[in-house]
Amino acid sequence: MELKFPSETEGKPIRCKAAVARKAGEPLIIEEIEVAPPEAWEVRIKILCTSLCHTDVTFWKVEGLCFCLKFLQGPVSFFPRIFGHEATGVVESVGEHVEEVKAGDIVLPVFHRNCENCKDCKSKKGNGCSIFPSEFYGAMPRDGTSRFKDMNGDPIHHFFSVSSFAEYTVVDITHVVKISPQIPIDKACLLSCGVSTGFGAAYKYAEIEEGSSVAIFGLGAVGLAVAEGAKLCRASKIIGVDLNPQKFEMGKKFGVTDFINPSSCGEKSIIKEMTDGGADYSFECIGLASLMSQAFDSTRQSGGKTVVLGVEMQGSPICLNSYDLLRGRTVMGCLFGGLKPKSDISNLVKKYLDHELNLEGFISHEFNFEDINKAFELLNQGKSLRCIIWMDNK
Amino acid sequence: MELKFPSETEGKPIRCKAAVARKAGEPLIIEEIEVAPPEAWEVRIKILCTSLCHTDVTFWKVEGLCFCLKFLQGPVSFFPRIFGHEATGVVESVGEHVEEVKAGDIVLPVFHRNCENCKDCKSKKGNGCSIFPSEFYGAMPRDGTSRFKDMNGDPIHHFFSVSSFAEYTVVDITHVVKISPQIPIDKACLLSCGVSTGFGAAYKYAEIEEGSSVAIFGLGAVGLAVAEGAKLCRASKIIGVDLNPQKFEMGKKFGVTDFINPSSCGEKSIIKEMTDGGADYSFECIGLASLMSQAFDSTRQSGGKTVVLGVEMQGSPICLNSYDLLRGRTVMGCLFGGLKPKSDISNLVKKYLDHELNLEGFISHEFNFEDINKAFELLNQGKSLRCIIWMDNK
Repeated sequence: MELKFPSETEGKPIRCKAAVARKAGEPLIIEEIEVAPPEAWEVRIKILCTSLCHTDVTFWKVEGLCFCLKFLQGPVSFFPRIFGHEATGVVESVGEHVEEVKAGDIVLPVFHRNCENCKDCKSKKGNGCSIFPSEFYGAMPRDGTSRFKDMNGDPIHHFFSVSSFAEYTVVDITHVVKISPQIPIDKACLLSCGVSTGFGAAYKYAEIEEGSSVAIFGLGAVGLAVAEGAKLCRASKIIGVDLNPQKFEMGKKFGVTDFINPSSCGEKSIIKEMTDGGADYSFECIGLASLMSQAFDSTRQSGGKTVVLGVEMQGSPICLNSYDLLRGRTVMGCLFGGLKPKSDISNLVKKYLDHELNLEGFISHEFNFEDINKAFELLNQGKSLRCIIWMDNK
Repeated sequence: MELKFPSETEGKPIRCKAAVARKAGEPLIIEEIEVAPPEAWEVRIKILCTSLCHTDVTFWKVEGLCFCLKFLQGPVSFFPRIFGHEATGVVESVGEHVEEVKAGDIVLPVFHRNCENCKDCKSKKGNGCSIFPSEFYGAMPRDGTSRFKDMNGDPIHHFFSVSSFAEYTVVDITHVVKISPQIPIDKACLLSCGVSTGFGAAYKYAEIEEGSSVAIFGLGAVGLAVAEGAKLCRASKIIGVDLNPQKFEMGKKFGVTDFINPSSCGEKSIIKEMTDGGADYSFECIGLASLMSQAFDSTRQSGGKTVVLGVEMQGSPICLNSYDLLRGRTVMGCLFGGLKPKSDISNLVKKYLDHELNLEGFISHEFNFEDINKAFELLNQGKSLRCIIWMDNK
């Protein structure tokens, strides 16, 4: 770490490199940008490494993003834009009123807000945060403006309150979580979105009981993290459902005990047979309304629980047979696995350090920052799980 | 109680009166029938009093019953038939293998099965019972035959495993719950369906926390019982939603603190305003898919829980916006309020005896058995809450 404290750059704009998405679906361009100092309640972070999540790719491609107006309660297609929302960084400087972190702290920027003071944050139920009445997904959440400028002085849009595909970024304090420096930074960055989503949903949100049967629809990083959480809860049967048969071998490492390829069988009835009437828990990790209904149908009629984790890209509603619901099933959804970032991420870090949580297995590729477009290509083609992108060449 | 023990009628058919529905929607006919002795695992019960529930009326009218093929997994329109499924009775005799109750015991016959031995009954989650692989809603559950005959020797169909509109009925032991004789029988019979459904859903199934806000869609007996359960859980705001403005005064007696008439306002946004962002719990007690969606929309985004209690008569699916689900909402459904009849009804009886549970308020009318059609008229016209029908003139 070459950062000096107190930082020489504190209070001043920083010129640095960023991978800027100038147009939807076109390769990112590594260019020089200017990152403003943090305003009040903001933190400027030097990104150390970042990873690529499907959500980055979806918003970069824009195609099929019709859902977002409703989901995000505002327009979503902003260009130029700096993507990236899974990362580990070190605090460079903080704005007024920020006492929770200081320069030099290792932190995760997290897309999911957690002010710890609103009614939702104080509640034991759920993990929402209602500190801000509206959302600015392309800008800073408090004032709706950008901290990024290009060399023409034009603003560049933020992404999901993080924008980690830059050497420096500015993040609201409600989106910053201090972590132990003991965890390797490439493992840590996985905890800022996908892995936490799956693991948290299984381990904390669904409250999987020992000996339960679990069906996971979609074995991407989120689905595999669900398997890992289910395994830690001592589920006795963890059924992976995926169109890609190679996912079974991969899934075994995360706890998947059985595999179903839905292209070759009726997965609902097979799951019911395999589980003596239906899975105790099912998880939808893709984001397809039809699959959410299937996940629901695959559960046990008395006490079966379905957890929806995928974001439905077409805006289709989930349609459920009300009699199947009446027979005692539950459907629930969550963002970020139902975890409250500020209090729960440290538990996940501890689990990693205690060798309870496998993070290594999620890392399929590593790239230097200038090769970031290769990571986009791989994930777009379904060939990677998580690509770590190192900001300083490894 | 004039019943002698051991019963003089034990092992023999009993001739008695029943209110037989010969044709859909036509007045019941009080006629003499023959009730066979109980087979193995069956109990013959002398009905003391019974009450009329909407489900009786729905299956009597048959109109709009298109949903049932799917819900009940078989045909549902059986005539001639003996309706009635809320009742208190005394055991007249028992079949082979029945040790749980004996002649003279005061019991509730309950439509919701509870064998206490299957995987579902033994599970702490849910209240399903999977002892029988298929359902015979018009006959005895074990062998699919009837215990009722008319004077021509033709069988009469059962209803929901109970058929309480007769002086004697035969019920499978999995549908019989022994209760304390301390509770007045007219109050007790309310616990065999509607009141238990609403009260159980609020008090046990939804796990309402102290200080919560609760929205109840539909203030019939089930909805009012939800209010009573919510009050006992110390909910701070209990909002009743009903098209009938007279329901507010009635609802106050059961704990309703606020009232919304959806014909004069947008109930979703008003509930959100009244509850600072959405109700912690909402209950759908009518059986309309569109209302289930509204109940869902009225809940808080982080941790809001919707409980569906109404049976959707048109077979329409519940459609939910998946993003609203992802923000941390839960939807769950249950039959019989999520209660396990054999273990939970005695708790409700105790609550009544301890003056914690108001049952008197549900009784709006009382009739002698020969006037049973008047009870049908009143409920059909929405003019009654619960009519008690006395088998022996009061």
